[in-house]
Amino acid sequence: MSDQEKEEIIRTAIRAFPDFPSPGICFRDITPVLKDPLAFCSVIDLFEKHLRANFPKIDVIAGLDSRGFLFGPSLAQRFNIGFLLIRKKGKLPGPTESVSYSLEYGKAELEMQYDAVEPGQKVVLIDDLLATGGTMNAACELVKRRNAEILDCLVVIELKSLKGAQKIKPYTVHSLLQYD
Amino acid sequence: MSDQEKEEIIRTAIRAFPDFPSPGICFRDITPVLKDPLAFCSVIDLFEKHLRANFPKIDVIAGLDSRGFLFGPSLAQRFNIGFLLIRKKGKLPGPTESVSYSLEYGKAELEMQYDAVEPGQKVVLIDDLLATGGTMNAACELVKRRNAEILDCLVVIELKSLKGAQKIKPYTVHSLLQYD
Repeated sequence: MSDQEKEEIIRTAIRAFPDFPSPGICFRDITPVLKDPLAFCSVIDLFEKHLRANFPKIDVIAGLDSRGFLFGPSLAQRFNIGFLLIRKKGKLPGPTESVSYSLEYGKAELEMQYDAVEPGQKVVLIDDLLATGGTMNAACELVKRRNAEILDCLVVIELKSLKGAQKIKPYTVHSLLQYD
Repeated sequence: MSDQEKEEIIRTAIRAFPDFPSPGICFRDITPVLKDPLAFCSVIDLFEKHLRANFPKIDVIAGLDSRGFLFGPSLAQRFNIGFLLIRKKGKLPGPTESVSYSLEYGKAELEMQYDAVEPGQKVVLIDDLLATGGTMNAACELVKRRNAEILDCLVVIELKSLKGAQKIKPYTVHSLLQYD
């Protein structure tokens, strides 16, 4: 199956829900991608192909709580490498590094275990969707503080009009599908 | 590699953190299982073997928010079937079925999309850990309300002294590792 066919399978699976979770937001629902094993496998195939074409060595896949958890471990298995959890505050035991970031209303905090990554390791971040980039930017900051190297940020969906890719510079984003 | 060796790899990876997230609780940390690709693969291998030996047909793997998301999609891929998200309240768009359940302090609510499963489909639930069984029991209730058939509940870790398996009867639990 071609990459274009895989993309089309994923695009067809994703649903739009206007005004969720709040008025004015159009929510892109990825649950049908999980429901269809071919669509899910296509996501992992396309991410794997992109990474192999661009990065000769990857040490860790880091996934964002909680929809990054859906894709990250399967992708890490393709490379026979580990998966690292970047979680909301208070979920991880032991010594953690944490970073605060601003949301539309108020603040949030992300955490990562100290020993989740070694200095110098090459890390790829993954989440389902890039909107304003606030959460992905905070995740990059966490990984950077542990002196690991960020290779790329993967997302299934990128909402281009929100300019999240600008926010996480100098790090790069690779998205499978783009919407305004 | 034998099943015993796989179990040992998983057991060795899991860490105990006393008094997390609150005094008197011993937290079993599965993050090193995710960090070690062989340990992660061993979890999926053992779950797959158990399911193939016991259930001739499975339609859907249902995972609990959020650590069930780490294992469920990889397991679903082994059977070429879909993965269904059981989430905390307010995270899923569209029509949802919801169920409230009691926590030690207060209440929580789980949700599932109406169209996530068809009546009569055979469902296996998955989470990282079974403690008192409150969350797994609520998840079973959700699936049952959609008139799907629950085959089994899979967890990596079962805390036997908390008797969660009693709570979710008549449904069955299969755990890879047991602690008091």
